[in-house]
Amino acid sequence: MSDHETTVRRHWACAEARDWRGYAATLATDVVYEAPQTRERIRGREALVAYMSAYPGDWHVPVATVVAGGSGAVSRVDALVGAEEMTGICFFEMGEDGLIRSMQDWWPQPYDLPPEREGSSERY
Amino acid sequence: MSDHETTVRRHWACAEARDWRGYAATLATDVVYEAPQTRERIRGREALVAYMSAYPGDWHVPVATVVAGGSGAVSRVDALVGAEEMTGICFFEMGEDGLIRSMQDWWPQPYDLPPEREGSSERY
Repeated sequence: MSDHETTVRRHWACAEARDWRGYAATLATDVVYEAPQTRERIRGREALVAYMSAYPGDWHVPVATVVAGGSGAVSRVDALVGAEEMTGICFFEMGEDGLIRSMQDWWPQPYDLPPEREGSSERY
Repeated sequence: MSDHETTVRRHWACAEARDWRGYAATLATDVVYEAPQTRERIRGREALVAYMSAYPGDWHVPVATVVAGGSGAVSRVDALVGAEEMTGICFFEMGEDGLIRSMQDWWPQPYDLPPEREGSSERY
């Protein structure tokens, strides 16, 4: 397992365990978190830990996949927020010290197939 | 650049150029494409090329990022479909021959910030 994969898996495992000291230890002090779909941005380790530790709901973030290479990594988590299943995809960039310096967090939602694409694929 | 990154960039460059012969050459014959948000699945290189080459609209798929490692890669494309900007995130798995054997394609959409998250982050 690459170093960046280890860091990303630890990041999510600490979030799952609400181990905010361990979570913080995966982050650079000046980490920048962005959620482009809502255009939310959080600057700094302290602010990000505060945001995550206060995140509402009974949420779980089991990791489905990590792809790591170069200076970054991408994870997919099959999250549960209460009874709702959600897919989270996060792009991470690491600094030379191996700590997470940026996160770009995406939460794609199911949507109805547009009529013009009906019949051109199998459904599952 | 890793082999898988090269393959993914060629995959999108050929799609952008409507070079369906070059596009097909990045795919295993038994490639499986899935779009989990709509639960679409397409099996086989021939069917996937037919689907992509018939995809409606004036679309463009410039690559923003590729992270490649292990047996896979992830790309983000900042797509344009007509005048609409869309973000596409695709997870690729490659076989031992380096060809794409699976794709899991996500298209996250903007959404309104839930009221309970108002004020807990900067907006951009």
